[in-house]
Amino acid sequence: MGGLLFVLSGPSGVGKSTLRKEVMKRCPALKYSISCTTRPPRQEEKEGIDYYFVDMETFEEMRERGEFIEWAKVHGNYYGTPRRPVEEWLKEGFDVILEIDVQGAKQVKNDYPDGVFIFIAPPSLKVLEQRLRERHSDPEDDLLLRMTNAHLEMQAIRDYNYLVVNDVLEEAVDKLRSIILAERCRIR
Amino acid sequence: MGGLLFVLSGPSGVGKSTLRKEVMKRCPALKYSISCTTRPPRQEEKEGIDYYFVDMETFEEMRERGEFIEWAKVHGNYYGTPRRPVEEWLKEGFDVILEIDVQGAKQVKNDYPDGVFIFIAPPSLKVLEQRLRERHSDPEDDLLLRMTNAHLEMQAIRDYNYLVVNDVLEEAVDKLRSIILAERCRIR
Repeated sequence: MGGLLFVLSGPSGVGKSTLRKEVMKRCPALKYSISCTTRPPRQEEKEGIDYYFVDMETFEEMRERGEFIEWAKVHGNYYGTPRRPVEEWLKEGFDVILEIDVQGAKQVKNDYPDGVFIFIAPPSLKVLEQRLRERHSDPEDDLLLRMTNAHLEMQAIRDYNYLVVNDVLEEAVDKLRSIILAERCRIR
Repeated sequence: MGGLLFVLSGPSGVGKSTLRKEVMKRCPALKYSISCTTRPPRQEEKEGIDYYFVDMETFEEMRERGEFIEWAKVHGNYYGTPRRPVEEWLKEGFDVILEIDVQGAKQVKNDYPDGVFIFIAPPSLKVLEQRLRERHSDPEDDLLLRMTNAHLEMQAIRDYNYLVVNDVLEEAVDKLRSIILAERCRIR
């Protein structure tokens, strides 16, 4: 029997990365598939740990060769999930977690309809805006774009299996961990 | 929106009661529906806490009046779940947990197809037999009957949503709690 595919998604700035890292500490058996991106690294981000940072040309070549299970252009940058490690882990029976944007999740759903799709939502769009401002990494017009997208992306919730509101971090991590444990007990 | 109905079931002796009590300590918002039974109380059992202990005649009258959402004759004794508190709690938005045998769970599934059905299994039938012997409360021919039934009941697993193997108690409680938390995040 193959492993389970957990897809963590939601608007930019909602805290997907932090949640994913915290839940991996508590569920050590999870495999994380590192994405490729053309976006420049943020201060704390490390090559091969947070992302594979590649240039536009390399990304487009990989895409042409069908090497991504999903890819998306988000706020002017490309993001993509390499196909091979995910497929191999699942085949070997490992559970895999992806942390991707809402467009990407939609593509993954086509190839993996039995994946477990988890939408991470902010307590409100107002709180999301605050968090994006605190991150300080975006110019003002990027912020506007992110907020407009967030508003649209919230409408995709109905296509997901679970909704976790990221209000108090510890509670959200506990819920995510619970979803993973519960899905491992689910009779299919 | 109504509450969720969690149905905990599995063979006699598998540890349903202990698990249900432990999980209720960790999920205080759960309402537990106390069953009626014609079986005599075990040493540690208390009227109105573990069961309502009633005589055969009272039980049959209640059954005739349709006061049970499920009832079953198990190893010569009647067990039944009173309908009213469950319906009212669910309507008021409370989550409810039932702890019932496999026959009873099948009846509840007819009325509540959207309930969350959780099968508690022993690590093996051999371990189940040991546990029943250690309980000391059954004569030898009851034990045989329980073991035969357990064997048959294991085949009902496919009608359930979740399977929790009660091997290490703490782990089984953690899984049960996770199922409850996860179902509260599920998009329906």
